[in-house]
Amino acid sequence: MYKVKVYVTLRESVLDPQGAAVKGALHSMDYLDVTDVRIGKYMELTIEKTDRDIDEVINEVCTRLLANPVIEDYRYEIEESVAQ
Amino acid sequence: MYKVKVYVTLRESVLDPQGAAVKGALHSMDYLDVTDVRIGKYMELTIEKTDRDIDEVINEVCTRLLANPVIEDYRYEIEESVAQ
Repeated sequence: MYKVKVYVTLRESVLDPQGAAVKGALHSMDYLDVTDVRIGKYMELTIEKTDRDIDEVINEVCTRLLANPVIEDYRYEIEESVAQ
Repeated sequence: MYKVKVYVTLRESVLDPQGAAVKGALHSMDYLDVTDVRIGKYMELTIEKTDRDIDEVINEVCTRLLANPVIEDYRYEIEESVAQ
C-alpha cells in the first residue's frame, strides 16, 4: 500500500486572491512581516499496490482530476509502502 | 527572509466530506485502488526576518488564523533564509 502526498499550487504567473485575502487579514492582525502568502491544496492518498506503475497512476490522477494543468502545478511524494 | 510551508489537515477523527467526494470521483474513473483521500490546505508564507522568534510567529499565525484548532492539525517547515 502506498501513502502519497500531493501538493497542488497555483502557477507563479496566476493571481492568488485567496492568498492576498489571507495576507490582508494577517496585516490587519499586525503581522506586517508576512510579505507574501500563496495558498494551495494538500492531499493524502492511500493507494493499494497493483501491477500498474505507481508514478503513472499518480500522474494520471493528478492531471485528470486533482490539479487543473492550465493554472496549477502539482508535485507528490510517495511515502511508506507497507507490504500487503 | 524566511520561506515557510504550512500544512493544515483535518484531525483523523473528523469526517472529510471533500476527501470522500474526491475518492468517489476517482472510483467512478476506475481508480479503484485508491482506498482513502484526505484533503487539507498547503500554504507558502514569505516572512521578513525580525527580532521576534520565527517559530513563535508561525505558531501564532497558525493558531489565530490559518488553522482551526478544534478540527484541524497543522505542521510547518521553515525553508531557505536569505540574508537581508
